[in-house]
This record gives sequence, structure tokens and C-alpha cells, in this order.
Amino acid sequence: MMTTASTTTKLETLGKEMVKEIDRGEGPTFETTLRTRSNTLFDEAIGCLRSGDKKETRKFLSVAQARTFMQTVAVAAKTKQFLRENLHTSIRGLFYQLKFTLGEDIDEDLFTEQSESNGLIEDLEVALKIKREDLNLTTDRKGFVAGSMTILDKFGGEETLIDLAKQGRSGWSIPSDVDNGMEIKKCEAEYVLVVEKDALWQRLNEDKFWKKENCLLVTPKGQSTRGTRRLLRKLADRGLPIYCLMDCDAWGWYIYWTIKTGSMNLAYLGRDFAVPEARFLGVTMKDIRDFEFLQKLTIKAKDVDVKRAEEMLGYPWINRHADWVAELKEVIKTRKKIEQDALQGQRLTFVGEYINNKIKKKQWLS
Amino acid sequence: MMTTASTTTKLETLGKEMVKEIDRGEGPTFETTLRTRSNTLFDEAIGCLRSGDKKETRKFLSVAQARTFMQTVAVAAKTKQFLRENLHTSIRGLFYQLKFTLGEDIDEDLFTEQSESNGLIEDLEVALKIKREDLNLTTDRKGFVAGSMTILDKFGGEETLIDLAKQGRSGWSIPSDVDNGMEIKKCEAEYVLVVEKDALWQRLNEDKFWKKENCLLVTPKGQSTRGTRRLLRKLADRGLPIYCLMDCDAWGWYIYWTIKTGSMNLAYLGRDFAVPEARFLGVTMKDIRDFEFLQKLTIKAKDVDVKRAEEMLGYPWINRHADWVAELKEVIKTRKKIEQDALQGQRLTFVGEYINNKIKKKQWLS
Repeated sequence: MMTTASTTTKLETLGKEMVKEIDRGEGPTFETTLRTRSNTLFDEAIGCLRSGDKKETRKFLSVAQARTFMQTVAVAAKTKQFLRENLHTSIRGLFYQLKFTLGEDIDEDLFTEQSESNGLIEDLEVALKIKREDLNLTTDRKGFVAGSMTILDKFGGEETLIDLAKQGRSGWSIPSDVDNGMEIKKCEAEYVLVVEKDALWQRLNEDKFWKKENCLLVTPKGQSTRGTRRLLRKLADRGLPIYCLMDCDAWGWYIYWTIKTGSMNLAYLGRDFAVPEARFLGVTMKDIRDFEFLQKLTIKAKDVDVKRAEEMLGYPWINRHADWVAELKEVIKTRKKIEQDALQGQRLTFVGEYINNKIKKKQWLS
Repeated sequence: MMTTASTTTKLETLGKEMVKEIDRGEGPTFETTLRTRSNTLFDEAIGCLRSGDKKETRKFLSVAQARTFMQTVAVAAKTKQFLRENLHTSIRGLFYQLKFTLGEDIDEDLFTEQSESNGLIEDLEVALKIKREDLNLTTDRKGFVAGSMTILDKFGGEETLIDLAKQGRSGWSIPSDVDNGMEIKKCEAEYVLVVEKDALWQRLNEDKFWKKENCLLVTPKGQSTRGTRRLLRKLADRGLPIYCLMDCDAWGWYIYWTIKTGSMNLAYLGRDFAVPEARFLGVTMKDIRDFEFLQKLTIKAKDVDVKRAEEMLGYPWINRHADWVAELKEVIKTRKKIEQDALQGQRLTFVGEYINNKIKKKQWLS
């Protein structure tokens, strides 16, 4: 976590370096780390994807780069203002502030392409070694938690203690930023259970699974947001095991591996947003053999599932795990898959027993 | 709100009537209200869309209807079991329970089509005059609230008091079901402000807008879930004005009119899920003339926006409002639109002033 003061200093230094270049009679430049596939690597020592060392220097005095260069500087200047005002906004809010300030007719369709507006901010994150949340930019939020944990939320000039064991059916919504102005005051849970779908989270919350098992019950509601990934990283740093229960299909695996190693597209985020310690409890192809009732609850794998399984077999950080190789090969061979919801097929309350049993017998994939 | 006992009685009565038909030597039948467009009307007196009086009778002894008939009965039997067990699950969980119980190879692709699995449950809702939430079925949740209101949540055998003024940056997540086992214990807010996007909700929450103005700050996060629509209905029933701030585009208008009158597709839900009292604060085309800084923050309307505006001009419950007609005609003429995020263009904190001003001067569209 960066403090507002240190982030502001980094932004100022960036600007001062450019001024120096201009004073020397040079065109200003901006150096950042390349976020291309070819500069993405799996870091064995840490156990996650990250950017390599290849740098890229953007020049103001370049026809091809001048516009992007200017936009990057404008983003830096504008977010420095947000830090000074102590106010947050979204990327969309930033866009309108820039559009108003620059006064030019920015081509909306071009500028709002996720690839461009995100790209400018990613450039700054990488170049300054900060997170966009440190620039007072809010991002999408989606996930939920319940369990024996208390959060101190310093926000909008107030401090609020939030007891995640007293949130009823709703749970606590994981915010966009779990670092700045937020502390874990107390955490008595013994492990973290991450279930892919909110529907299953609600099922387990109704069973008070987190209370009986003294765990934190988390759902990313599908793919994890930045906030959810940061929270899981922080919980793992406190020594809590992170167990994941996902669908046995292309999407479920992707959600799991994004939590564990990060994704190719956001590899530049590195270990701050990855949990190499994460373990995959299920659902697995092996479960279909182990639990008789699941046999009639499999569904036909789609082409995308099979294609994804084949791709994953090509990733060295996956195919070094024999159990994962066996799983993926079975999907390709049988062209079957199974959803976590199927665990409720026989009895609604079975899913809790299944999870307990898996953890007790250490039946997980890495 | 139905009690579990009265819902169970309704399900039992449905079954007993079928048994009587069989005892009389007849094939069992199931009568429900037609949910077609031709049986959808705008109810002037109530101010929302609802189903008309046309009935449909499904017969078990019909080649075309036997399968659907059986599935409907299976859904009724299974949800009756959920009520007895006092456990909730999603439609997907229900699907797997049915698949396991029936033991047949249900064609997954066919059965999980939203149109079919939803359709069966909609049939029961309409036929029995209940909500799916009364059948212990959970639905997607998405929206958030902050403000001076306390909720008593009786859930999973526990009672929790939740103070919506003490939820920090996260707010309270509006659950799937705000009726069964949930009470508004205290509500001191004077009105409800609904903003389309979570990003703007976070902006206003940071400004403590709800505290300064003593309102409830709600975001549906896009289209409203059933839970959000029910909550807004309940708040309107307590006499709170409901003000809405949406994008001035096809999607924003749709979100507003769904809150106000319901949508064509879910018209069968009627007034229980509609808020005819809702008022549209903005963003409007008129705002572009009234606020100079907005003039450079408009964006080009897409074909879908213009097409939607033309469609809306054809709806009698919209085109009887002269101010809406003027708005929509201006979109069609200028082919411009504007987003709520643009209100932050000049100053991040402007949006609160804008809202206050609109309410004070009663500058809203119905």
C-alpha cells in the first residue's frame, strides 16, 4: 500500500523529470515496462505471472506517440488533483474530467475502448510501481465475504468498524480498494473458502458454514475483481489457507488460475494480485467417479471447455502438476464437465460436507 | 408477502385439485394466466404494466403439453420440499435436484434455456399468485443501499440488525428476497435517490450525500434485480418519494421505466415490482442547454438509442407526458446523448448539487 503522500511524490517526480528533459532541450519521454505477451513470464520463485524487464520509452516528439504521451501526462496530472482533493472517481469519471479540461473533441469511441483508457492507467501503474487504487480511481466491485473478521473502514472522513459475522443474508461487499484507508482489525477465521458463484455462497451462508467451520466464506461472483484478488492476497499473507471451489469447466478453471497465478492480460500486476498458495478443492472429474449421485449430473462439455483444457495442458505452470494433467485429459477424453451447483443435486446441504471432507483428507489440486 | 404456511397450502391445493381430476377419470390440468404480449396491458389506474385476464389451461393428456406439465408439477413438488426443509437454493440448484430426482437424461441445453427454466417458475408464480422468493428460490442480487435505515434480517435461524448508515464504503447489498424474514425496523430518511451506476453511487457515498440530505442512496447497478424492485416498492409504500438519476440513453431510460411501470417481459409481476410514483431527475437533454459545461460532454447517440427513443414515443404510457416526448424527440433530432458520469466533468462533487437543485425546484419528468 502506498500512502497518498508517496504516490503524489511519484507523480511529481515523473513531471519533474520531463521538465528537466525539456530544459535540456530534449523532448520529454516516459519510460514504462512492456506489457506484451513476449514480456510476460511465469516467475517460478514466486509462483505467478509477471512482466519481464523489457522497457519501452515513449517520446512526445514522435508523430505516432505524441497523442498517447499527452493523454498519459493528462491522466497523471488529473489523478494528482484527485489525491489533493481527497476524492475518488471511476475511470469514466476521469474520462469526463479530461474531456472537459482538455476542451478538445476527443473521439469518444476511440478513447473509451477498454484497451485505450485502461492502457493509459496501466502504463502509469507499471511505470510508477503503484496501483490505480492509489490514484483514487475506483474499479468494479462484485465479491462478498462472511465470517469471523472485523474490518476498520476509514472512508469519507469517518471510521466504521464492520463485523463480517453480523451481515445476515447479504454479507459484506468487497470494495474496489481494500488497501487505502482499510485495515483488518481482527481475524479469527482459520481458512478462506472461495466459491465461484453467489448462489452457492448464499446456500453456504444459510447453512452458517463459515460459523460452524470457522472460515471466511468468499465469493468473487465469477471472475475476481481487483478488490477480491487483493483481499485474498492479504488473507494469504496472514497465513490463512485459501481453498477454492469452482465449476469444472473452462470458466471455473480460468477463475481459479487468475486467483492463483494472475492472468496473461493482467500479468503486470504480479504477486500483489495473485495467491500462488491457493488450492483447488473441486469440482473435479475425479469427483464424478467418487460420488455416485454426481454421475447423472454431468453435462456435455462445450468446444470452448475442451479447447481451454488443451491450452492449459500447454502452460508449464499447470502441466507440471500431474493431478491437473489427469483432470484436463479426462475432460478432453470424455467431453464431460460438471458444475458446483450439481453438489446440491441429492441434498441441498451436501456441499458443506463435501468441502469439509476434501479439506480434512487434503484432497485438493494445487 | 406470503408466509411459508400459506405458500405450502397453495401448492398442496394445486396438487389436490389435480388428484380430484384424476379421481374423476379426467386428465389433470393446470390453469395459469397467459404471459404473452397480447395479454399484457398498461393499467391506467395503477400506473404499471400487468397481465390481462386471458387464461391458459395446460393438459397432461396432450402430446404437446405433457412434458412441460410434468416439469411444472415437479417444480411445485420440489419447492414444497424446500419450504418444508426451510432451505433456499437458486434455479440452478432446483434444476440439479430435479435432474437427480427424475433420474432421466434431461436435455441440459433445452432445460437451462432461461426461457424454459424461468418459464416454469413464472407459470407457478402467476397461477398461485405468489413470488418465486416465496418458494425459497433465490435470484440474482446486485444493488446497494446506504442511509438512515435499519433492517432486521431473520436468516438461517438468527436475527441480525443491520444499520445502513454504518456500512462504510461498501453499503448494504440488497438481497435476493427483501420480504420473507426481513423487516424495515426504522427508516428516518426523507426520500430515495436511485442512481444507475455503482461508480456514481460510490462517488455520492464518499460525499456522504445520503447523510447530508437525509435520503436513502440506492444503486441497482444497471438494470434492477427483483430484490431492488421489491425494496423500492416497499419504500414507496412508506410514502418516500423515489427519485431516479440515469444515463440519458436507451439503457438508462429502460432501467427507469422498468422501475416505474415494469417491463413488457416481466409485466406479469404487476404492481408488486413496480413504482409508478418514481420520478426521473435526469440526465436530460434539457440539462445540456441548462448547464454550459455539459455541452462539450455529450456523446453521439447510437442507432440503438435513437431506435429506442422512437419506440418509446409509441408507448401510450410514455407519450402522454409532454416533457418525455420533447426529450425523446430531441434525441432523435440531435442524435446526441449524455451519461450521468458527465456530471463529474467540471467538478467531482457537482453531482450532489445538481440533484439537490433538481429536487428543490421540482425539475423532474414523471
